[in-house]
Amino acid sequence: MFIDKLVTGIKKLDNPTVAGLDPKLEYVPAFIREKAFKECGVGFEGAAEAILQFNKKLIDALYDIVPVVKPQLAYYEMYGTAGVKTFADTCTYAGSKGMLVIADGKRNDIGSTAEAYSTAFLGKTPIGTFDGSAFSADALTVNPYLGYDGIKPFIDNCGKYGKGIFILVKTSNKSSGQLQDLITRDGKTIYETVAELVNEWGSQVMGESGYSGIGAVVGATYPEQAKILRGIMKKAYILVPGYGAQGGTAKDAVHSFDINGLGAVINASRSIMCAWKLEKWSATYGEDAFDSAARAEAIRMKDEINEALAGRERTE
Amino acid sequence: MFIDKLVTGIKKLDNPTVAGLDPKLEYVPAFIREKAFKECGVGFEGAAEAILQFNKKLIDALYDIVPVVKPQLAYYEMYGTAGVKTFADTCTYAGSKGMLVIADGKRNDIGSTAEAYSTAFLGKTPIGTFDGSAFSADALTVNPYLGYDGIKPFIDNCGKYGKGIFILVKTSNKSSGQLQDLITRDGKTIYETVAELVNEWGSQVMGESGYSGIGAVVGATYPEQAKILRGIMKKAYILVPGYGAQGGTAKDAVHSFDINGLGAVINASRSIMCAWKLEKWSATYGEDAFDSAARAEAIRMKDEINEALAGRERTE
Repeated sequence: MFIDKLVTGIKKLDNPTVAGLDPKLEYVPAFIREKAFKECGVGFEGAAEAILQFNKKLIDALYDIVPVVKPQLAYYEMYGTAGVKTFADTCTYAGSKGMLVIADGKRNDIGSTAEAYSTAFLGKTPIGTFDGSAFSADALTVNPYLGYDGIKPFIDNCGKYGKGIFILVKTSNKSSGQLQDLITRDGKTIYETVAELVNEWGSQVMGESGYSGIGAVVGATYPEQAKILRGIMKKAYILVPGYGAQGGTAKDAVHSFDINGLGAVINASRSIMCAWKLEKWSATYGEDAFDSAARAEAIRMKDEINEALAGRERTE
Repeated sequence: MFIDKLVTGIKKLDNPTVAGLDPKLEYVPAFIREKAFKECGVGFEGAAEAILQFNKKLIDALYDIVPVVKPQLAYYEMYGTAGVKTFADTCTYAGSKGMLVIADGKRNDIGSTAEAYSTAFLGKTPIGTFDGSAFSADALTVNPYLGYDGIKPFIDNCGKYGKGIFILVKTSNKSSGQLQDLITRDGKTIYETVAELVNEWGSQVMGESGYSGIGAVVGATYPEQAKILRGIMKKAYILVPGYGAQGGTAKDAVHSFDINGLGAVINASRSIMCAWKLEKWSATYGEDAFDSAARAEAIRMKDEINEALAGRERTE
């Protein structure tokens, strides 16, 4: 089951982080871009090829130290069908290297359509005598605005195929409170209400690790809310965006971990993909060593998170 | 601008409906499926080809009577990259026949990622000297759970490229109330709160028709709520799912229209795609005449909606 593999991977590599693969074309080093443009033309095919080669190099540099990648579908869809093929190939390549894949698509719809999304990312599509996976992902992010009908088809495939989902609870962006922080008549915020649902729904798909296949997304930029949400969703793994470029610190992020030092996985995207451009690495690594820089930054991040976790435990 | 083209199209064809293209493979007539499997194999490529041919025939049968199609992305993504190519080709084909295209993807994310989705469906992707549209859609459905940050990039492209969005307000499914009906401390439901935001945001992108490029989704299955929402979002076009197969009637659906008999567009998917299987058409049309049956059902639906609209005006 995804959640058990996640816990095993995090423990084995001593690394509760996920590398986000949100590859804007301008993040791809010029020498990769130019080669791809020469081979596939300056257009969607060339861009998609450049991104695939970039992702593969990043995966090669990270797979033995980072347990999970999280490709964000938007950055592939903007390159059309060719981009979506690169998304598919990236998922497959990461899987072949032993990494888990969280497809970050924030998909949502009602009953039968949610079922189709669930089939696409978590299930198998039956076509006559053929039965295959449209995309090789282990987990998917989903949006809860439509209620249980819109979530159940994903939960069903988590059970059937051993997959996972992360439900948006409190997102990392500035205006996330516009709806999520509204307080209902029973004195609860919307994000607390969603967290209670995550907790309730999660009991349907429990892993051997003691965590549920139904996780949550809680931004590192809201540490106070993270403390409350950790308390509500005791069995949920929390996927934490907003660390690094968005302003969330390691100290902010550790509130999503539970007393066992597990229960959360912290995402970084740009700081890893573009590590060679950061002041702390640019003296050591040039553009041609972007992958080594990504590895160095991933190790630094792991150490920073683990240190903040240890620090939290000392003060508690 | 999309919204003005929509109003013009609806008036010209006297038809405030949209044909949903949510093509499960089992909806595709056997003779199309078999031909595609023979040509492209029993797998994703064959399924995607079958769906494309099915869609093209439906578009050929509908383009001079129905102003808009709404392909639902989930049903294409479940056939992998090949399915997404069929989505792209369907959008392009519908556009070439003069139909407007609403991409039903319910996309949502924060700032820069929402920007990438907006680029994919409403904008243009810059790649070196190249600048092209990843998908040829005129409008996109979006989910509001992340607040304004997650909506602004779509609004920006509505302004820049003359596109439209429909924001989920009150969805047609049974459990939509689980979050959407919650009442906040100021006595408003979440769906009313979102409707007020749609109204406010919509003022940024007004069309010459007097309607905004920022529309809303309100299910036909909630007629009482539709009356309230129509009152809040005076300038928003309302995309109405839930008519037909989901139980919403023409009388339910007409509450989303304004006093001018405009302001709403009613979706039907399965009843049109699979019209030849319906009791009312199966005696007249066989599987080989599925497209004629779709046309007959689209005309019947148009007449039913227009009659209910006229009936509402008589009783008001």
